[in-house]
Amino acid sequence: MAVYTDVNEAELEAFLRNYPVGDLLSYKGIAEGTENSNFLLHTTEGSFILTLYEKRVDKSDLPFFLGLMQHLARKGISCPLPVDGRDGTIIGTLAGRPAVLITFLEGMWLRRPQAAHCREVGKALAELHLAGMDFKMTRPNALAIAGWRELWEGARARADEVEKGLAAEVDADFVLLQKNWPTDLPSGIIHADLFPDNVFFLGNKLSGLIDFYFACNDMFAYDLATCLNAWCFEKDFAFNLTKGTALLAGYQSVRPLTDEEKAALPVLAHGSALRFMLTRLYDWLTIPDGGLVIKRDPTEYIRRIRFHRAITSPREYGLQ
Amino acid sequence: MAVYTDVNEAELEAFLRNYPVGDLLSYKGIAEGTENSNFLLHTTEGSFILTLYEKRVDKSDLPFFLGLMQHLARKGISCPLPVDGRDGTIIGTLAGRPAVLITFLEGMWLRRPQAAHCREVGKALAELHLAGMDFKMTRPNALAIAGWRELWEGARARADEVEKGLAAEVDADFVLLQKNWPTDLPSGIIHADLFPDNVFFLGNKLSGLIDFYFACNDMFAYDLATCLNAWCFEKDFAFNLTKGTALLAGYQSVRPLTDEEKAALPVLAHGSALRFMLTRLYDWLTIPDGGLVIKRDPTEYIRRIRFHRAITSPREYGLQ
Repeated sequence: MAVYTDVNEAELEAFLRNYPVGDLLSYKGIAEGTENSNFLLHTTEGSFILTLYEKRVDKSDLPFFLGLMQHLARKGISCPLPVDGRDGTIIGTLAGRPAVLITFLEGMWLRRPQAAHCREVGKALAELHLAGMDFKMTRPNALAIAGWRELWEGARARADEVEKGLAAEVDADFVLLQKNWPTDLPSGIIHADLFPDNVFFLGNKLSGLIDFYFACNDMFAYDLATCLNAWCFEKDFAFNLTKGTALLAGYQSVRPLTDEEKAALPVLAHGSALRFMLTRLYDWLTIPDGGLVIKRDPTEYIRRIRFHRAITSPREYGLQ
Repeated sequence: MAVYTDVNEAELEAFLRNYPVGDLLSYKGIAEGTENSNFLLHTTEGSFILTLYEKRVDKSDLPFFLGLMQHLARKGISCPLPVDGRDGTIIGTLAGRPAVLITFLEGMWLRRPQAAHCREVGKALAELHLAGMDFKMTRPNALAIAGWRELWEGARARADEVEKGLAAEVDADFVLLQKNWPTDLPSGIIHADLFPDNVFFLGNKLSGLIDFYFACNDMFAYDLATCLNAWCFEKDFAFNLTKGTALLAGYQSVRPLTDEEKAALPVLAHGSALRFMLTRLYDWLTIPDGGLVIKRDPTEYIRRIRFHRAITSPREYGLQ
């Protein structure tokens, strides 16, 4: 849930005068996204999302995120399109925060995705990787290994509160991952957070990708490994091989993996699971209870880490 | 903020098959309402609100609330209209909860209403009172004096934690109100919760009234007194006489008050302020921190109570 900042009608109407979106009919705070405040607007011209960036987003990254969305939309990727202001800028100010207006994408994110959806997600991810290849801006991945280490330093001392033995387990993971982490795989723009709530479907057809606020430059196969974690585990933490097979086949139908990428998949999936476990663990231990930020259980990702650690061949993910 | 219950796409689509609303395009949990879970739906036929009733709403009251909305809409009051199911029922079940689909009203609720808006609210309230006169169902006001007493019994022992001396002050109020509370004023259907977030405007024109989940039978002038509390105090707790004058004149332009109603306005406003102070106080003291229910500060209403206690003539509200 996320409406950290309310907006009054006078400041909103003043803000909207800069955008060619007609007259405001309604606006509702929506309970999606965990980093920003989002409103769904109806105007005489259609529906739009208004996003106010809260302090967890670095303002200097906004031109990258918004430029990327515009680039991808121009390349035919269905993603929200930032609306250009009449003054030529995209980013305005509302309620003291950087704010943008983006087009509204119809579609539902799936609470219970099936294998057919995983196949579509794989295809869309590969299309995204290809479409991003000629994007001119770059942004390093703040949540690559060095970033994980920083999170771990802030959480390690209390990690065993979440699960006894976790500190030693993660220490060993860092040794292993540092040794085996690939550095020369095909890289480019990755989404880096393509979880089910960031992919919309209309029926079985993928209708759009949203939330590019973790996008960065990193290995394509790492992005795919994150999707394995996000889409192919069941609620009981069992890996669903049918979904894994569908996701990987969907991806390869657009962009075949190199042999090196295939071989690296287990270590990348292991690292990706560690990355999401660490952000959750850090939030779990440092954000006070009762705040507006929803804290997600890190233990779901401890289970995934253990699964990946035991993988001996990428075929176990369904790779063909 | 209010999405207590999430809904998955499969159960939502099954639910919607019973309603003639076309195909689902999107649904977003919205951060409005404090008692229920609400979603804004886009379908091929338009926009709708899906409400899931959580445990704070008594299911046996739903036919009254929904029947009233249909009655008022038929009488020309702009309010959300429950959509009839193909099976002839209005109330369905979704995610284990009673659920209804209602039409979406465009319009914004005003964070900063002006006197001209207060006049429109007064008129709309009087129109609502007249339109409800031939509604056949009745519902006693659960938050009349007897209900206040129950809340007070659950909060009294800890009231001084909120403000020293509050317990003695409220005890004295009960004696006073019990003695002076009118019983024979014109009565009928009242909204009972017509706060700014329940009134939509497009520009300066009132476009609709929402949230009838406190509606009941009680004195019309009590409903008007609640609007004085809800609309005519500034953030510094000063009463805005211009707004009071506009609200009362707007009301009387549609339904003139009787002399008895005019004379009773101070005690009704006092009682209404006590009612909202008590529900807030009760929630403040009993709902654990960190829950999803937003707890509102009771002290805003302690200030209003003191203001009304000092009133010597209804003219001080702007009554003409």
